[in-house]
Amino acid sequence: MKQIYLDYAAATPLDGGVLEAMLPYLTDDFYNPSATYLAARSVRQALNEARAKIAGCLGARPAEIIFTAGATEANNLAIQGIMKRFPEGEVLVSAIEHESVIEPAKLFSHKVIPATKQGVVDLAKLEAMVGDKTVLVSVMLVNNELGTIQPVNEIAKLLNKLSNLRKSKGNKLPLYLHTDAAQAGNYLDLHVSRLGVDLMSLNGGKIYGPKQSGILYVAAGTDLEPIIYGGGQEFNKRSGTENVAACIGLAAALSKAQAKRQAENRRVAELRTMFEQELAKRLPTTQVNGPAANRAPHITSVTFPGVDNERLMMQLDEAGVIAAVGSACSASNDEPSHVLKAIGLSDQAARSTLRFSFGRDTTAKNVEKVVKLLADFVAANR
Amino acid sequence: MKQIYLDYAAATPLDGGVLEAMLPYLTDDFYNPSATYLAARSVRQALNEARAKIAGCLGARPAEIIFTAGATEANNLAIQGIMKRFPEGEVLVSAIEHESVIEPAKLFSHKVIPATKQGVVDLAKLEAMVGDKTVLVSVMLVNNELGTIQPVNEIAKLLNKLSNLRKSKGNKLPLYLHTDAAQAGNYLDLHVSRLGVDLMSLNGGKIYGPKQSGILYVAAGTDLEPIIYGGGQEFNKRSGTENVAACIGLAAALSKAQAKRQAENRRVAELRTMFEQELAKRLPTTQVNGPAANRAPHITSVTFPGVDNERLMMQLDEAGVIAAVGSACSASNDEPSHVLKAIGLSDQAARSTLRFSFGRDTTAKNVEKVVKLLADFVAANR
Repeated sequence: MKQIYLDYAAATPLDGGVLEAMLPYLTDDFYNPSATYLAARSVRQALNEARAKIAGCLGARPAEIIFTAGATEANNLAIQGIMKRFPEGEVLVSAIEHESVIEPAKLFSHKVIPATKQGVVDLAKLEAMVGDKTVLVSVMLVNNELGTIQPVNEIAKLLNKLSNLRKSKGNKLPLYLHTDAAQAGNYLDLHVSRLGVDLMSLNGGKIYGPKQSGILYVAAGTDLEPIIYGGGQEFNKRSGTENVAACIGLAAALSKAQAKRQAENRRVAELRTMFEQELAKRLPTTQVNGPAANRAPHITSVTFPGVDNERLMMQLDEAGVIAAVGSACSASNDEPSHVLKAIGLSDQAARSTLRFSFGRDTTAKNVEKVVKLLADFVAANR
Repeated sequence: MKQIYLDYAAATPLDGGVLEAMLPYLTDDFYNPSATYLAARSVRQALNEARAKIAGCLGARPAEIIFTAGATEANNLAIQGIMKRFPEGEVLVSAIEHESVIEPAKLFSHKVIPATKQGVVDLAKLEAMVGDKTVLVSVMLVNNELGTIQPVNEIAKLLNKLSNLRKSKGNKLPLYLHTDAAQAGNYLDLHVSRLGVDLMSLNGGKIYGPKQSGILYVAAGTDLEPIIYGGGQEFNKRSGTENVAACIGLAAALSKAQAKRQAENRRVAELRTMFEQELAKRLPTTQVNGPAANRAPHITSVTFPGVDNERLMMQLDEAGVIAAVGSACSASNDEPSHVLKAIGLSDQAARSTLRFSFGRDTTAKNVEKVVKLLADFVAANR
């Protein structure tokens, strides 16, 4: 039985070319890039090239790219790094952020920006919540459970306006915008100037790169405090001997994902539309969470009223189809998803919701088969 | 020209068997271990087995092993994690600790325990420095520049005595002992109960495992605050999707290193003795830093009076011999080593010092050749 994997939002397989790019740095070129002999300098050079390649994908400078062990660390570095510099300040995070944004925000004076029922951050409420002490706003680019694209560039313009207003009143606090772009790399434009962000997190493990590879983009002039101190690597912002193979793998994965993104966006969006339309035909009571427009193409969150999502997930699993009861990070605890709650789903509806996420190997045939299985299982379950 | 690598203290090549153990988790078994379908549960199982294997090597329980991205993060988690829980407390670190212990300690009320000229922490001074507010003492197991073994078990006994004394006076603060064992894994016993430590950092990148793999051992009942928050992985002590391949690689590397440690200790100690004796014959003015006894076998720090260490390092490099001007973490900045300063070397002597560190591929022939080259170069340089 060939497996159909529909949990690309939780983990992507490592691209074959990416592994190939990494292997020399897992074998022969193992030298510590901080050492000063020739072999080590050549590893340092490869690391610099990876950094420059990533910077190129983002329209950023190499010195603005901080390698981290994944997006969770990058999000923590963004939130803690800025807030530790402004202990009197306040951070705003949206209600549908990933735990790795919400949890560090709780360490500081913080407010949670509500989301609309459509799974998008509420701009009017955001504007009203920015106060004299707000120094950081963190809103993700693509929500990991709904796929909704957040209006990051609009938020950037809004914050710019509010910041200028504040400045004119003599308030000298900065007003930074961070976005967690972990789910965006395969499908969206990541140019930091077009997005208007000061900080952005990326994750290799979601773009066919290695797990626990990641970066935090930190715009020049944004001086943040490290969370990991030591030898002073990564421009003194993140110490530790560099994970050279992972950095090189991340650069290869990101440039490939960004090169393919427009074609993949179209292809995967078609599959998702087909999935949702077929599902609506076969199971008219199902409900897709989030709006029809402004969604990244790879995620669909579907509520099957009256059906237990754990049970349905297990039935699919036995039939060779992998779907998720929620984001993997919270799947292992038993709480209903905070994202589904934030957009107004009842606990019961949340417990009847599955996330399907598509990727490079997903085909129309897969989609057909999954819809058929779902129709059968749901009919039997009710 | 076959290269002779003598910088194993900076980075070890990845063991072939370790890479083999990792590869399935870099390819087919890429699933997110927090997901709940069968394929992900099987990855979770492999991760649990890696954790149990590491715990076995340390005589610890699996739940006491926290995976981190290397020893720098583990050291930060130990220092910051304990000190954030006891903000009124004080931490003592030795003067010859790695930067990843010294720098986080500076964030808190801290004192620096001097080292003797022999490169060993001064026990009498340590005892005098432990005060009513001391909650954490951090002393490394093997110094990364000198190879000196620190009296960790003696310190454990001393702290136990002082802690009991404090308790009898009604002081309820704990008194924890952390050791950074990054340089010890290939040669020394790491059983935590025999060492008597509450916290211990290990690093895969120094024991023929993957870079940025590591653990912090945290004794049951030692409740520390995370530095990376989010999905709650690693028993809520370190969030982020697990770097499964790296964890499995670390477990394979550690168990192999510990299985070989006694034989390797003898073999490498002989090579080092030969190196130092031959060098003393050929270049009688050279000076080995640190004592003859109580050193891990793989590191020797040699001062060549009147010789510039950068220049000598480069001459060796051109001749195919890789040695280090200091620890890699500080090699890239121009400051003389804080470790050599702490044991009383002048800046000038520090700038005439090279570190040679031996490993699995080092042979007697290598040693002979390097001594001969050193004798030639030093004679020409003076």
